[in-house]
Amino acid sequence: MTGRHRVDAAAQVATDASPDVDRAVRAAAAAGVERTTRAERADWLRALADAVEAHRDELVALAHDETHLSEARLGGEVTRTAAQLRFFAGVIEEGSYLEATLDAPDASLTPPRPDLRRMLRPIGPVAVFAASNFPFAFSVLGNDTASALAAGAPVVVKAHPGHPELSRRVAAIGRDALAAAGGTADALQLVEGLDAGVALVGHPLVAAVGFTGSTRGGRALFDLATARPAPIPFYGELGSLNPVVVTEAAATADVAGIAAGLAGSFTRDGGQYCTKPGLVLVPADHGFEAALDDALAEVDGQRLLTDGMAVAFVDGVDRLGSLDGAEVVLPGRLADGAAPAAAATVVTVDAVTFAAGPESWLEECFGPLTVLVRYRGDDERDRAIATLEGSLTASIHHAPGEDVRDLADALGRIAGRLVFNGWPTGVAIAWAQHHGGGWPATTASVHTSVGATAIRRWLVPVAYQDAPAGVLPPELRDGNPLGIPRREDGTPKPGSRTA
Amino acid sequence: MTGRHRVDAAAQVATDASPDVDRAVRAAAAAGVERTTRAERADWLRALADAVEAHRDELVALAHDETHLSEARLGGEVTRTAAQLRFFAGVIEEGSYLEATLDAPDASLTPPRPDLRRMLRPIGPVAVFAASNFPFAFSVLGNDTASALAAGAPVVVKAHPGHPELSRRVAAIGRDALAAAGGTADALQLVEGLDAGVALVGHPLVAAVGFTGSTRGGRALFDLATARPAPIPFYGELGSLNPVVVTEAAATADVAGIAAGLAGSFTRDGGQYCTKPGLVLVPADHGFEAALDDALAEVDGQRLLTDGMAVAFVDGVDRLGSLDGAEVVLPGRLADGAAPAAAATVVTVDAVTFAAGPESWLEECFGPLTVLVRYRGDDERDRAIATLEGSLTASIHHAPGEDVRDLADALGRIAGRLVFNGWPTGVAIAWAQHHGGGWPATTASVHTSVGATAIRRWLVPVAYQDAPAGVLPPELRDGNPLGIPRREDGTPKPGSRTA
Repeated sequence: MTGRHRVDAAAQVATDASPDVDRAVRAAAAAGVERTTRAERADWLRALADAVEAHRDELVALAHDETHLSEARLGGEVTRTAAQLRFFAGVIEEGSYLEATLDAPDASLTPPRPDLRRMLRPIGPVAVFAASNFPFAFSVLGNDTASALAAGAPVVVKAHPGHPELSRRVAAIGRDALAAAGGTADALQLVEGLDAGVALVGHPLVAAVGFTGSTRGGRALFDLATARPAPIPFYGELGSLNPVVVTEAAATADVAGIAAGLAGSFTRDGGQYCTKPGLVLVPADHGFEAALDDALAEVDGQRLLTDGMAVAFVDGVDRLGSLDGAEVVLPGRLADGAAPAAAATVVTVDAVTFAAGPESWLEECFGPLTVLVRYRGDDERDRAIATLEGSLTASIHHAPGEDVRDLADALGRIAGRLVFNGWPTGVAIAWAQHHGGGWPATTASVHTSVGATAIRRWLVPVAYQDAPAGVLPPELRDGNPLGIPRREDGTPKPGSRTA
Repeated sequence: MTGRHRVDAAAQVATDASPDVDRAVRAAAAAGVERTTRAERADWLRALADAVEAHRDELVALAHDETHLSEARLGGEVTRTAAQLRFFAGVIEEGSYLEATLDAPDASLTPPRPDLRRMLRPIGPVAVFAASNFPFAFSVLGNDTASALAAGAPVVVKAHPGHPELSRRVAAIGRDALAAAGGTADALQLVEGLDAGVALVGHPLVAAVGFTGSTRGGRALFDLATARPAPIPFYGELGSLNPVVVTEAAATADVAGIAAGLAGSFTRDGGQYCTKPGLVLVPADHGFEAALDDALAEVDGQRLLTDGMAVAFVDGVDRLGSLDGAEVVLPGRLADGAAPAAAATVVTVDAVTFAAGPESWLEECFGPLTVLVRYRGDDERDRAIATLEGSLTASIHHAPGEDVRDLADALGRIAGRLVFNGWPTGVAIAWAQHHGGGWPATTASVHTSVGATAIRRWLVPVAYQDAPAGVLPPELRDGNPLGIPRREDGTPKPGSRTA
């Protein structure tokens, strides 16, 4: 997709700067993944799922050592990771994702229409930046890798430095499983280090980037990807506040239950989720703070993923605590002897001060912290909402039968997922899932990193005009030999597998 | 989607720098387009189509004065423009474009799945940069505007300076037609001038940009869009060579027919098409150049769209002609008295020299010029192909029954549309159309500016989790009250309109 001499020159720079990255990208590009069938790749994905589960105990122990997350949580994450891999096997077998579309010729139109057949094809080698907080589900064999391999795109993973040994082990297991399943180990590559990440985004053969991480790091890499001589798509999931609104009627009906739910959600696994509720609008004088204090009294501190994150958490608490009108409450407990552990922390502020205050109120603080914004009346609440930035989620706690359409409209303008009487943590794997949102939640609000349509990030369309049958992919041939869902002359036709 | 104080500050800058642009964007954002129904917007689009056709004679005369394109061509373009508007009315009535997807709760999964319902919603105000070469079909009421209004996104058009009077008149007709159809005139805005374009891309309320134009201009605006504090998608269609490959067998079978087809395609309306075949790989010693010379002898020169383009055309001929191995042939005729007209021009070079030569061989030259690259044997041909950059189209002329699968694979890696035994000019309006390609053909090869999926540029997904029925858009409610195609629990279900 890029110019020849420009590519040669850029590739030389890439080789000189980072020979390991260059070798990894070239090996991935030469692996022939784009020529495999959907059935072959579905087999690979199931083999990868089986391999991860077969090494469950070893991998959970390694991950626990490196991330301090509980073994129970990590075991659940292994199950999730295997489920994601199998989910994408099903998505490509079903075949709708190809968007196969056929139009018959019609010479009577202006301009005349030839025989046109369109479908999506793999974009080329993909760079995946692994996350710290999901050492399995958004790391080496996580959702980005699963969806890219499903699409037919080889993957070069940039390991997260928070779990290097685990990353190496998962990559080795994955490469072995790919080879054993009749694929090629080279479809999956691992590189490490900050410089390697920079070289990866700049490499002329890399066709797209998936990133999960901080706003600062993501923005820097996004800027590199878009500044390339031939820019490439950068699908980044960055920072998200995930605002929650508790209506007066909801607080009146069940303040204790909602406070207990919030306590569980924002402290879960140390509050280290991209969907952690980091900002909660609650009606003043409804006893919400006292109820939350009660609910948090028994919540233990959690050692954060890395020491750097522990330092950043303390800095974040200081930063928020120093803002005009802020009050810091520390209702959580530090576990005995858990040296760099972070205790559950609540910062409170009134809605008028929040809405008039500086932008730093909107900066995500990773870890077990949430900001309670106390409003008096719906007008104060709605003015505070109007100042929010893009988020992955927004949640509404309402009373049964309460009309929250305007609230949903207002929050729908900033968030990719609207949650009703529930909590945003826990992102289901589903056809209807969406995990995206406006800046800074993502760099490209059109796309998702979870759910069936996550595969679309790694695909580009091609249209065939008056092509001989032998040139067409089987999915576009007359008679629909592979039985996938297609659109023919404007009408959707279910595939034979799904009828 | 963007931060509050940041937005306020940026909006102040925008207002100060360009009050007209600020007024236009704010009026568009306040027009309420996102709250209209698909049925209402379909009515608007048909009213716009009717209005353009009702003013056909007046508009064609104005366009002819400003662009020097023939009245016959311009009349056809009015017909095309109306057809595009009506096509998108049909696309939104059918409803598949919403990607409505419903998953029922399943507590047995890891993680558990709640009730999830996903669909696409309008992205917000869209900036459209009109093209010079399609004063109707890719201008004020062209394809970008039609698809954005269809999606529910209001539009601010940056007029092309090549046809200012026409732009103003079409905008006025469009605004009147919108108001008369029960919509709001403010859904369509027009701004003019280079500074206005810059201000538009930087305006905090603009959510996405559509652009059709030069690689240089498009790149500058793309850089602005991605450098914003909150970056926005920039869907640009820039420069494209549209390579054509004539196989030896094809040349042997019908050299005169293919040469005549090429002559018609690259000189059509002065060669001022984004899909003009600007590079043709032909077998040496098959008489192709003589046949082309014959075919071009009767082709008249054409006055180009603007005087600036005429100067750029002469510069382009000089630039290509000065490259190592280049030979310039001028078989076309200049029409009598057509002062700044451009004559059909052919530059020839051998494939080995081309493949080893500088990148400037790959720069598009707008106007009636094509480069013939003479190859000796398939190896020379394939090496030349391997050096090409992204293009909107690639075409293959082959003999009946000839196996061109490898050729199609190689060209499919750079081009968004593959044409067989035909010419790339003339882009049909269709569900299966794709008008995109790798850089520099577009900035985002995932998207198209023609065909049904062009609407996806102006949409973002939202997922509803456990939402009360009253909050859900009708398209996501139980029982599918609007009868659109949906995916339910993983299975595509045709809508009642299309069953």
